Amino acid sequence: MNKIIECVPNFSEGRDKQIVEKIADAFSAKDNVKLLDYSSDADHNRSVITVAGEPEALKEAVIEAVGIAVELINLTKHSGQHPRMGAVDVIPFIPIKNVTMDEAITLSKEVGDAIGEKYNLPVFLYEKSATQQHRENLANVRKGEFEGLKEKMLSPEWKPDFGPLQPHPTAGAVAVGARMPLVAYNVNLNTSDLEIATAIAKKVRHIGGGLRFCKAMGVELEDKGITQVSMNLTDYTKTSIYRAHEMVRMEAKRYGVTVAGGEVIGLVPLEALVDSVAYYLGLDNFSIKQVLEIKLME
Amino acid sequence: MNKIIECVPNFSEGRDKQIVEKIADAFSAKDNVKLLDYSSDADHNRSVITVAGEPEALKEAVIEAVGIAVELINLTKHSGQHPRMGAVDVIPFIPIKNVTMDEAITLSKEVGDAIGEKYNLPVFLYEKSATQQHRENLANVRKGEFEGLKEKMLSPEWKPDFGPLQPHPTAGAVAVGARMPLVAYNVNLNTSDLEIATAIAKKVRHIGGGLRFCKAMGVELEDKGITQVSMNLTDYTKTSIYRAHEMVRMEAKRYGVTVAGGEVIGLVPLEALVDSVAYYLGLDNFSIKQVLEIKLME
Repeated sequence: MNKIIECVPNFSEGRDKQIVEKIADAFSAKDNVKLLDYSSDADHNRSVITVAGEPEALKEAVIEAVGIAVELINLTKHSGQHPRMGAVDVIPFIPIKNVTMDEAITLSKEVGDAIGEKYNLPVFLYEKSATQQHRENLANVRKGEFEGLKEKMLSPEWKPDFGPLQPHPTAGAVAVGARMPLVAYNVNLNTSDLEIATAIAKKVRHIGGGLRFCKAMGVELEDKGITQVSMNLTDYTKTSIYRAHEMVRMEAKRYGVTVAGGEVIGLVPLEALVDSVAYYLGLDNFSIKQVLEIKLME
Repeated sequence: MNKIIECVPNFSEGRDKQIVEKIADAFSAKDNVKLLDYSSDADHNRSVITVAGEPEALKEAVIEAVGIAVELINLTKHSGQHPRMGAVDVIPFIPIKNVTMDEAITLSKEVGDAIGEKYNLPVFLYEKSATQQHRENLANVRKGEFEGLKEKMLSPEWKPDFGPLQPHPTAGAVAVGARMPLVAYNVNLNTSDLEIATAIAKKVRHIGGGLRFCKAMGVELEDKGITQVSMNLTDYTKTSIYRAHEMVRMEAKRYGVTVAGGEVIGLVPLEALVDSVAYYLGLDNFSIKQVLEIKLME
């Protein structure tokens, strides 16, 4: 695959495995689309599918999956801990390889347009695709959830970007948009004192005057007798792994606490690793095309 | 491709482009084999082809390429600066992905057996495939070159592992073996004094009491007004990039010289980079399967 976009659609069904598998099937055995993972949570009554592919092929598969979800998931009978406003709740597109953010935004709009029209589903563009600033944040778009959607959409502020002006009777509405890949990165601390971990997290994160694209919280690892600063880096091209790591180390010094090591959770784009190795080794002109495995893929 | 072996055969023709292209063609448009690069040097009168593929497919393509070279290259008429003993001078196999060194050794022996038989070509196994210690080092195997081969092979010490007991009249003999991938890594120094760079190189390298799998020399970068320690890491799984880098930094301190940065030359296995990022960030359980691009390849 030359161009790759990742998509992580969230579906409001986490208990009926047959339904989840039917949706996931839309991504299986398709040319130029690869189903990477899917997982369901019964308490949340929600499933998250991770898929990647060539833009056009991915678009077709996502449209197909949305159709299946609209048909099989009925929000009027849905309960679960996780907030939701639609059968398909949110569809983020993430540029991965040879794709710009603008291309991912364009794809998200094409998908929004298609599913609005085809399934009579109101679509709100969010994150980088948002057409109005108050729609960038998913929590804002989803506020009021499925049950509050009908009234919320009466306001011109919440006129959808695509699809009908009122919610789909059983499938609600959906947020579609483009965003950067998240990097989940934790730094373990040589202290069992959660207060210290929390204090460091507050310094490191954006809202505490820290790094622009860093969310962070203190976490206790009881079995290990240590704590950690657990972080989400929402734009690793600007807030790199090494910057988050070194800032935790720097803030920890105030407490006489040392860093016990870092931990990458889940998948990470190669560029995010290369960026860190380039910092520590002082590499000037290194390109990921020099990585043998990447060269072999070309 | 699930299993990948790299092969970097050297051919004793660097002037006649048509011949080089005919040999390279043996690797083009083959299923499960990828021609990564080839380059010719007219002074050396020698060409190096870099190819990678699934073991079986790669084996067939290499055997085919050797046949073309034996037919088209005549060592009795060959001159060039680079030492050589055969039309195909050396064929190293390098395990890259899901392949053990033992499997690469086995493949090298299968290829050696096949080309010895098929083309009446004496084959010496070298490096990790060597059957006798004095044949591990390629320079030993090649000593005396094409012109001295007939007399050299009279000695039982130089009975070939495969093929006839005397050289091929026009194609000489070939060394075939398995080895680790080389990592070419340089560290730039904030000094224009070549003597300092050379002194550091001597400390860092194996023969000077330094790192086991490190070859190094001092080099002057005249246009930049600095020097560098230029290294070959012959087993990056044991002598990692970060170890070489930090040892150069440590030795440079003695001269009050600082490190201006590192430089990776050519291709590098992902594992070698990950190993260094894991050192600097203190990552404990990171796997290259967490790299998105690698996950996509699975």
